[in-house]
Amino acid sequence: MNEWVERSQKYTLTDAASGFSISFAGMHFSDADLAAMQPRFERAAREMIRLESGEIKNPDENRKVTHFSDRIAYPRTGLFGEVEKFAAGIRSEEIKGGTGKSFEAVVVNGIGGSALGPQLMQFAINGPYWNELSRARRGGNLKIYFLDNTDSSGFADLLEVMDPERTLHLVISKSGGTQETRNNMIAMENFYASRGLNFSDYAAAITMKDSQLHCHAVENRWLAVLEMAESIGGRTSETSIVGHVPAALTGIDFAEFLRGACAMDEWTRESDYRRNPAYMLAAMWYIAGSGRGDRNMVIVPYSDRLILMSRYLQQLVMESLGKELDLDGRVVHQGINVFGNKGGTDAHAFIQQLNDGRNDFFATFIEVLKDARQVPVTPDVSMGDYLHGFLEGLSAALRGKGREFIAIRIPELTVYQLGQLIALYERAVAVYAEFININAFHQPGVQAYKLAAKSVLALAGRVRNALAGMAGKRLDAAELAAAAGESEAEVEIGGLLDKMALNSDRVERSFDPGKNRWIYSIK
Amino acid sequence: MNEWVERSQKYTLTDAASGFSISFAGMHFSDADLAAMQPRFERAAREMIRLESGEIKNPDENRKVTHFSDRIAYPRTGLFGEVEKFAAGIRSEEIKGGTGKSFEAVVVNGIGGSALGPQLMQFAINGPYWNELSRARRGGNLKIYFLDNTDSSGFADLLEVMDPERTLHLVISKSGGTQETRNNMIAMENFYASRGLNFSDYAAAITMKDSQLHCHAVENRWLAVLEMAESIGGRTSETSIVGHVPAALTGIDFAEFLRGACAMDEWTRESDYRRNPAYMLAAMWYIAGSGRGDRNMVIVPYSDRLILMSRYLQQLVMESLGKELDLDGRVVHQGINVFGNKGGTDAHAFIQQLNDGRNDFFATFIEVLKDARQVPVTPDVSMGDYLHGFLEGLSAALRGKGREFIAIRIPELTVYQLGQLIALYERAVAVYAEFININAFHQPGVQAYKLAAKSVLALAGRVRNALAGMAGKRLDAAELAAAAGESEAEVEIGGLLDKMALNSDRVERSFDPGKNRWIYSIK
Repeated sequence: MNEWVERSQKYTLTDAASGFSISFAGMHFSDADLAAMQPRFERAAREMIRLESGEIKNPDENRKVTHFSDRIAYPRTGLFGEVEKFAAGIRSEEIKGGTGKSFEAVVVNGIGGSALGPQLMQFAINGPYWNELSRARRGGNLKIYFLDNTDSSGFADLLEVMDPERTLHLVISKSGGTQETRNNMIAMENFYASRGLNFSDYAAAITMKDSQLHCHAVENRWLAVLEMAESIGGRTSETSIVGHVPAALTGIDFAEFLRGACAMDEWTRESDYRRNPAYMLAAMWYIAGSGRGDRNMVIVPYSDRLILMSRYLQQLVMESLGKELDLDGRVVHQGINVFGNKGGTDAHAFIQQLNDGRNDFFATFIEVLKDARQVPVTPDVSMGDYLHGFLEGLSAALRGKGREFIAIRIPELTVYQLGQLIALYERAVAVYAEFININAFHQPGVQAYKLAAKSVLALAGRVRNALAGMAGKRLDAAELAAAAGESEAEVEIGGLLDKMALNSDRVERSFDPGKNRWIYSIK
Repeated sequence: MNEWVERSQKYTLTDAASGFSISFAGMHFSDADLAAMQPRFERAAREMIRLESGEIKNPDENRKVTHFSDRIAYPRTGLFGEVEKFAAGIRSEEIKGGTGKSFEAVVVNGIGGSALGPQLMQFAINGPYWNELSRARRGGNLKIYFLDNTDSSGFADLLEVMDPERTLHLVISKSGGTQETRNNMIAMENFYASRGLNFSDYAAAITMKDSQLHCHAVENRWLAVLEMAESIGGRTSETSIVGHVPAALTGIDFAEFLRGACAMDEWTRESDYRRNPAYMLAAMWYIAGSGRGDRNMVIVPYSDRLILMSRYLQQLVMESLGKELDLDGRVVHQGINVFGNKGGTDAHAFIQQLNDGRNDFFATFIEVLKDARQVPVTPDVSMGDYLHGFLEGLSAALRGKGREFIAIRIPELTVYQLGQLIALYERAVAVYAEFININAFHQPGVQAYKLAAKSVLALAGRVRNALAGMAGKRLDAAELAAAAGESEAEVEIGGLLDKMALNSDRVERSFDPGKNRWIYSIK
């Protein structure tokens, strides 16, 4: 038996019931490497028990971490029933907008963890053209759009296709104060008011109890105000109400999704670590990247509908593992880079580098065995056979060149199997965090950036005030900064003036090539 | 003057005419580093002259490289006029499908370089919801869809929304033999035949003269057969006819796009390298990654409509630079990893790691100064002001943590400025390739993978034959491989059987947990 055959047999884990399998044979490790992981496996297992029994596992924020445990109970809760009833009411047209018209579309207003999971699920289950299908073909379910930034172009593009009287707005912010989400909410409230419509008759919220958004939605008597647990972080919220409401409104069987996730959770509680797909997956990351993320994780699903998987995992992995300090306060600068799109397509893009270039990665292939449609190319060979052949061909080529890969295989792209995939990665991330002794559940690095952004906005206010007294003047950023007593902020003031020059009548600019500077005319 | 102010003034390059600017101030380099680049700058400049004067710059394929030079002349060629006339004929409904109905949509069937450029342009210029706009709102131009893989789910999803009698099919393959594209073409021909329609009445091709596709399209008298130059590679074909036809059919001013690209080409011929944005950009990559790509390139456009920019650049950079051998045949395993999506959104995803985690990257921000719409959040502050504040905030935070970034700023997201962006990166890639002495214009690594895929497809044929004599048997992959005399290929045969079990009646499978193997029943 050759080594490849032997390793494939030895290092492939398969769940008989679902047919989900994962092979680590294409990774470079030995049994000795796995044996050396034993203390880390044991520590992780202990910590997973602590986590699932409700101890504080996010110490910085003094929070429990309940995404694994909450999803077991969630389908039997009143909240679950409330969401299903709300969606059914929308579908049956019992719940309508303020002018008595039935809803045709939902706009999910959320960012990061409040958007990526629902986007992944929509694309994977309802496909890329859902919004172009007729109401009948959608089974009476809603079209779905996302506002996931504070970019006026995303907002303007949405207005081009949105029928305000037939659109439901689902505002999702755990903290209730996320600025981007708040901006879109305020802008939409203003837009509705400008049309003589009351936004509250078209709005629903998902947020923590007593948050700013919660109070606002209750006070204004929104159509629905749904509560989100404090103990579930954004990037692991797809199996919570955050995933549920968009799914229910678009006709996706969320209970089935949770069954898939919970089945994977069961499997990833397996105490024989070599038969536990999450512990093995995390061990691969650890061994390949020497416990420091020295290899990039390249996610290549061979499925057009899973193209957002890499972006979803990029958030889950990088936001969870990209940390400065470990749990003992030591500076570690951890993380694992994640990228990818979809195979075979990527073979005509960046796979050239994976084959020939820097050997600084491990690929993860996700294969969907069942073809969506039998599309013969020749009497014997179908489109799907080619896709399989390209995947196996790439695996063989990488293997021949000493490059590493993991191969996941699922029978079909169903909500159940999507639940399995997400739960697998959630556990692997939690386990890997224990291997490297970090808190996977906070995001302190975002604070510095938020504070700096606030100070830029404050500076903008001071600049606006300073400009009031400068009408008629022509100066460059250095002169203007000096005049405003903000010389240290000359660069940032230049940026603010550039922004104003393109968006308001108060400033015009022209470039002086000699000085290599923009000159601003204040109006 | 503080160092940040000084560096920003010194290392920001601005084009007065267009307002395009790029700042390298956030990168860690000194004037001495730049001085050390001088011999590389000079070599690159010499080679760019050779390239633009039509010498063979893709020696492996014995080809010229003409994407910089061809686009100067292209708008004045007969081919350009032919394309515009074809698009006008479709718009005015003079050109119709076989049953006399006007065209409403175009399906671009192409992969890699034949898809990513048109996808980027569509999303950036026509926005995310173009296909949902009415014909009037589209100005009579066509909706656009892409088949860019050999995945039956992409094909099936398209059929759900496609009106065959009103759909034009644009098949793009330079070589004319790209398998994925060919598969979609054959499948679509079969689909049209099954509806009693003649595919040729709905089809147009872009390919090299005398290619397989060229002969096929001419022989079957397709609506249009347009020729593509041998000397333009897929990943640099967006400014050629490959970009032109999809743009023209969707109402995009391609001549203006080329003006932008050519203006950037002019700038990147600047012989004072420190004032040349492409040479400086390539130098930043070189210095940051020690000439080996040791830092990942993270592309973060602050623009919802530029979300495909990172994917486009991922192809351009990684396929061009990810090479095993240098021009002297030495093993170098070069490349630069590229990933990213869009800012502010990414700040709620992977930016946590950029701030706090591994310092193994440099970010590239792309800011669009002009807001698509003035959307006030407060009387003084708009949605766009927040976006600007978040970008500046992230820059400041990264700077505070000793992390590197490049900042590009464009006044507006127009086709002209998109042309500038693409041309800048095309030149930077060509220049960087000279710095590291590699051929940027071939993709030899894809060959090994294609050959391996072929051998898997051949194996599949042999397995199908072997199965013919095994009806009624129950065996595992090892037994079946042995019976077929293919024991070495046991793993691959297992994969083929798994694929068959989900897609044909000839094989069923059940998992034997004891053996840890699938058992296949042959029908």
